[in-house]
Amino acid sequence: MPYTDLDQLAVNTIRVLAVDATFKANSGHPGAPMGMAPVAHVLFNNFMSFNPKNPDWANRDRFVLSNGHGCMLQYALLHLFGYKVSLDDLKNFRQLDSITPGHPEAHDTPGIEVTTGPLGQGFSNAVGLAIAQAQVGGTFNKPGFNLFNNYTYTFFGDGCAMEGIASEAASMAGHLKLGNLIAIYDDNHISIDGDTKCAFTEDVTKRFEAYGWHTVWVKDGDHDLAGIEAAIKEAKSVTDKPTMIRLTTTIGFGSKLQGTGGVHGNPLKADDCQHVKSLFGFDPNQSFVVPQQVYDLYAKHAAEGAAKEQAWNQLVQKYAAEHPAEGAELTRRLSGKLPEGWEKSLPTYTPADSAVATRKLSEAVLEKIHSVVPELLSGSADLTGSNNTRWKNAVDFQPPDLGIGNWAGRYLRYGVREHAMAAVMNGLTAYGVGLIPAGGTFLNFVSYAAGAVRLSALSRVRTIFVATHDSIGLGEDGPTHQPIETLAHFRALPNCMVWRPADGNETSAAYYSAITSKHTPSILALTRQNLPHLELSSIESALKGAYPVVEVANADVTLISTGSEVSICIEAATYLKEKHGVNARVVSVPCFEVFDAQDKAYKLKVLPDGIPVMSVEALTTMGWERYAHEQFGLNRFGASGPYKEVYKKFEITPEGISKRALATIEFYKGHTVRSPINRAFQHIL
Amino acid sequence: MPYTDLDQLAVNTIRVLAVDATFKANSGHPGAPMGMAPVAHVLFNNFMSFNPKNPDWANRDRFVLSNGHGCMLQYALLHLFGYKVSLDDLKNFRQLDSITPGHPEAHDTPGIEVTTGPLGQGFSNAVGLAIAQAQVGGTFNKPGFNLFNNYTYTFFGDGCAMEGIASEAASMAGHLKLGNLIAIYDDNHISIDGDTKCAFTEDVTKRFEAYGWHTVWVKDGDHDLAGIEAAIKEAKSVTDKPTMIRLTTTIGFGSKLQGTGGVHGNPLKADDCQHVKSLFGFDPNQSFVVPQQVYDLYAKHAAEGAAKEQAWNQLVQKYAAEHPAEGAELTRRLSGKLPEGWEKSLPTYTPADSAVATRKLSEAVLEKIHSVVPELLSGSADLTGSNNTRWKNAVDFQPPDLGIGNWAGRYLRYGVREHAMAAVMNGLTAYGVGLIPAGGTFLNFVSYAAGAVRLSALSRVRTIFVATHDSIGLGEDGPTHQPIETLAHFRALPNCMVWRPADGNETSAAYYSAITSKHTPSILALTRQNLPHLELSSIESALKGAYPVVEVANADVTLISTGSEVSICIEAATYLKEKHGVNARVVSVPCFEVFDAQDKAYKLKVLPDGIPVMSVEALTTMGWERYAHEQFGLNRFGASGPYKEVYKKFEITPEGISKRALATIEFYKGHTVRSPINRAFQHIL
Repeated sequence: MPYTDLDQLAVNTIRVLAVDATFKANSGHPGAPMGMAPVAHVLFNNFMSFNPKNPDWANRDRFVLSNGHGCMLQYALLHLFGYKVSLDDLKNFRQLDSITPGHPEAHDTPGIEVTTGPLGQGFSNAVGLAIAQAQVGGTFNKPGFNLFNNYTYTFFGDGCAMEGIASEAASMAGHLKLGNLIAIYDDNHISIDGDTKCAFTEDVTKRFEAYGWHTVWVKDGDHDLAGIEAAIKEAKSVTDKPTMIRLTTTIGFGSKLQGTGGVHGNPLKADDCQHVKSLFGFDPNQSFVVPQQVYDLYAKHAAEGAAKEQAWNQLVQKYAAEHPAEGAELTRRLSGKLPEGWEKSLPTYTPADSAVATRKLSEAVLEKIHSVVPELLSGSADLTGSNNTRWKNAVDFQPPDLGIGNWAGRYLRYGVREHAMAAVMNGLTAYGVGLIPAGGTFLNFVSYAAGAVRLSALSRVRTIFVATHDSIGLGEDGPTHQPIETLAHFRALPNCMVWRPADGNETSAAYYSAITSKHTPSILALTRQNLPHLELSSIESALKGAYPVVEVANADVTLISTGSEVSICIEAATYLKEKHGVNARVVSVPCFEVFDAQDKAYKLKVLPDGIPVMSVEALTTMGWERYAHEQFGLNRFGASGPYKEVYKKFEITPEGISKRALATIEFYKGHTVRSPINRAFQHIL
Repeated sequence: MPYTDLDQLAVNTIRVLAVDATFKANSGHPGAPMGMAPVAHVLFNNFMSFNPKNPDWANRDRFVLSNGHGCMLQYALLHLFGYKVSLDDLKNFRQLDSITPGHPEAHDTPGIEVTTGPLGQGFSNAVGLAIAQAQVGGTFNKPGFNLFNNYTYTFFGDGCAMEGIASEAASMAGHLKLGNLIAIYDDNHISIDGDTKCAFTEDVTKRFEAYGWHTVWVKDGDHDLAGIEAAIKEAKSVTDKPTMIRLTTTIGFGSKLQGTGGVHGNPLKADDCQHVKSLFGFDPNQSFVVPQQVYDLYAKHAAEGAAKEQAWNQLVQKYAAEHPAEGAELTRRLSGKLPEGWEKSLPTYTPADSAVATRKLSEAVLEKIHSVVPELLSGSADLTGSNNTRWKNAVDFQPPDLGIGNWAGRYLRYGVREHAMAAVMNGLTAYGVGLIPAGGTFLNFVSYAAGAVRLSALSRVRTIFVATHDSIGLGEDGPTHQPIETLAHFRALPNCMVWRPADGNETSAAYYSAITSKHTPSILALTRQNLPHLELSSIESALKGAYPVVEVANADVTLISTGSEVSICIEAATYLKEKHGVNARVVSVPCFEVFDAQDKAYKLKVLPDGIPVMSVEALTTMGWERYAHEQFGLNRFGASGPYKEVYKKFEITPEGISKRALATIEFYKGHTVRSPINRAFQHIL
């Protein structure tokens, strides 16, 4: 379309709003919004389908600002198009409890798809969103009913381009031939250290081509609106590859400091604000001014989006009429509800069942539930056979022409890309059609994904990490692969559930909890080695987070433990009785976070006053002080060897536990013992 | 050179040793050693300079097996060339306390340069080793004295190629034009999930070209020894680019399962072992057989290496004679000693000095010590102006032709590549000439580097993370950038010191500790916001890990805290006295790990019996139970806003602290209070 002064006015309105908001906040990043306003205008007004009145419309086009520090760009757009983001909200940019925080947060602000800012994450989320579209489309679309056909657009800068996570995700997107993904690279040659020539001189376009992307270059992103439009059109026409549009722009366009690092992360000075406004025909002495024509222009596009949603809703109705089963399923998915009674498929066990590794028990759960929870998408970062994440006859999610899967496939081959896997999973959940991604790697390598796991927790999404080989119990691979700090790390992460089941029932409980916790990610720490099924375990008990697995009268000590060490503690209890006449209770605590959420009366029943508690876990003791007076664990790195020998080396045996239990009993003799459950004050705000 | 049957015999000996060792261990990865034996033979025997009798010779060529799971390849080579790795050591592969653990560990095995296995790390360490060569060469080499001119070689597989960290490091190496780096890509099309076509179909060669690498392809890596030699020769001839040699091989070459995932991570079956041996002309019924000719061949090369070292030592002597100052400096560096009296340059402060952010105090330290500790290399992951890691007039480490630095430069522009930064720093320390790398990023983004920080700790190297913006005190950037779990995570990591200084003297102490701890990485958590200097702080006190900063008689409570919260606790103590007549002591604990290492008497003086202890830190409370009966912190995500308002929101104020201190006193009234220092048993094995 021909571009007019009105388009330019809209572009400049965005720029000036970003200048005003960062200036008022005395904080923030004006440079990227000023540089990317032209592409944002063309993309949002000429290409994207969305309805500001219903940001959750399922087939909307998705937009992700991976360079999230430029969020004033997005907040300005949301305001101008009529989302529930007011001019006052823009004035409250970066202020406490505003809906316009320093980086975009999905749950705070209508129209924000994913939480970005940590570089590389948004780009990778966008890959997840694009996969979700393809998978959901592959599942539901039928001839005449192209229900899911939205595009995912993402902006990213040099910072994202440098991050390894984005490289991983880009490689994955290229492999998957995601033609519905269009990434626009803000090639402005500036990062925080100044000119990118000091650290980043690679050929980004060639790199994306190497990944299998289509690429286009718009050389004048500051002015060439028509060129931008042509590039996006071209990108949309390439259906078997994602497209990367290299858009050369001037950071802080219009500022006296344009094209320098000076406009990246600091508001403009007052005189520069005035300069910008004058340059763009705004009154230099007024702030937060939006010309009515701009509101009108964008309102027109918003209305078109609303109409598209209406048409889509009618199409869905027609679909439901012609395909009642699929229609009902889609309705359920969109409602966010799980299938009725799915949990009845969770396997249960008795001690008569043979000892099995929890990673195999996890596989048994997936085998049982995959057909009743069709929104479950499993996968692994190239450890399928070790993580046991793939049910029999699972179909890979793959471009059909590769001949090894299809778009409706529910098993994702993430490759050796743990960080991208976690971020892609975040994107899958953000698509909003109820997808439940489960991704496997070794527990130790969930740490590679820490940046993205943190964002699962912060953005309150349901991702599941199938984290096998969860301790020195992995044996020969040795200390490079044996987690020590990992459980403490993720237990310390707010809104993240760490499950470490001790047997089959606890593994089923972990899945029950993970799948029903819509706003919380879960890490399931699972063993390589076989574990017996416990006498007192049940799904119900495990869902309390902690419960006694050995109960005795007149207990001298409580042993509290998780996963593979619970059964060793039970042996230790027997040993203590037989060799020392000592009464030991044993408590299994498969999930700290769930136990913390129980009422105090229950918690005191599990860890009663008067009995000293000793924890046993074959990883760091850090964090166990919360429940245990004394802690036994591994505050050093592990060792390479057959796992039973490694356990023996570190004395995590009935004898080694007993020795320390006796010391604990002795230490508390004659002292009043208060349960650690008693606290002077609530320690969660 | 012409290749003979003897070469082939050597290649096959390596293969058969890998088959035998993994079979005997019933664990391990035979596939990569069998596939890469030819290139290993050509590289080690025809190109690499090393002296097995002195694996620490400073100008040796470096070799890094990034696909560390293939370590039987390396152990076999080390044995055959005469390093202190015996045939019995090979027989003890993956057994407890052997020097041949499941993945190579630098401190366990002579000849292993860096600890590898976690994928992508070794490749990135190799980039660090190559940077180290260039930097040390740039510093010491003089006309006629090309003292440091070694090459760094690394092998990597598809797994490493998929990892983001390796992408980051490769991009950095290309930018830096590291002509001394040659990476050999084992293009065998197999990863754990089977054929790489399921997840990894990018054009790796083109990607490396995009990074600025020279590339070569050897199409028959199984047989073409001459082709391999030619490729390495070509790589060495390209001096202004790193080279990536794509080497197409057959994984598990010789096995019945060659070319399949079946030989990747499992020993061969007994009959297949026999098959391989027969095929290669070995007695199928014997194991661990090394033909004497192979020993002889390799002994010859080892002897040549020893002679090269001797010649080098003479050259160093001559250098020292002609350039006495540089010679003395080099001798010092090689001895591992720090410059005499360097610590006198550490700044000290009194309360009269104005309040300053600890990130700025860190800058002041670097400003003072950089000239007296010339082996200190600073840098940042593109946050130089925020991390304050660059001293005035620092010279960038850059290829001279870029015109923005030189090879002797001591400031590294890591780009937005936190994970690679940490791994490159590991490589810098591994070069063995005393380099002390310090790298900056926000504390929250040290999590991106968690995989490599873990290896700093495990491989016992001295890396320093300048981790600024260490809490909600960063303010407006908001929860995406505010660490919560991070300190707990790294405190839980064995052999990693986390410092969180409260003022200038403590910041100097943190640097003293970090620089003098040769076998331990340090994370310095530093504030964005200004902090006052404390009355009782001193370098000496801080070096005890914890010490009282407010001492009172008849104390009712001890407040224990770190960093920016210490001065708030001091205000709280005043508030408690004035408003409630309560006597509060305050303890600053800048480093848990250092405090833990003090004797019990000292620790009990800091945290005496009889006084309840409450901790205050604006991050997770997890881990604080070790020192405090009650904990006050932030077990949730932060908020975006001006930092003082954020602190107020979460009640981390004199009033909020006092309220909880009173609750703590009340809770312990009438109870015997034992110091948390008292333990039933030692919890570090």
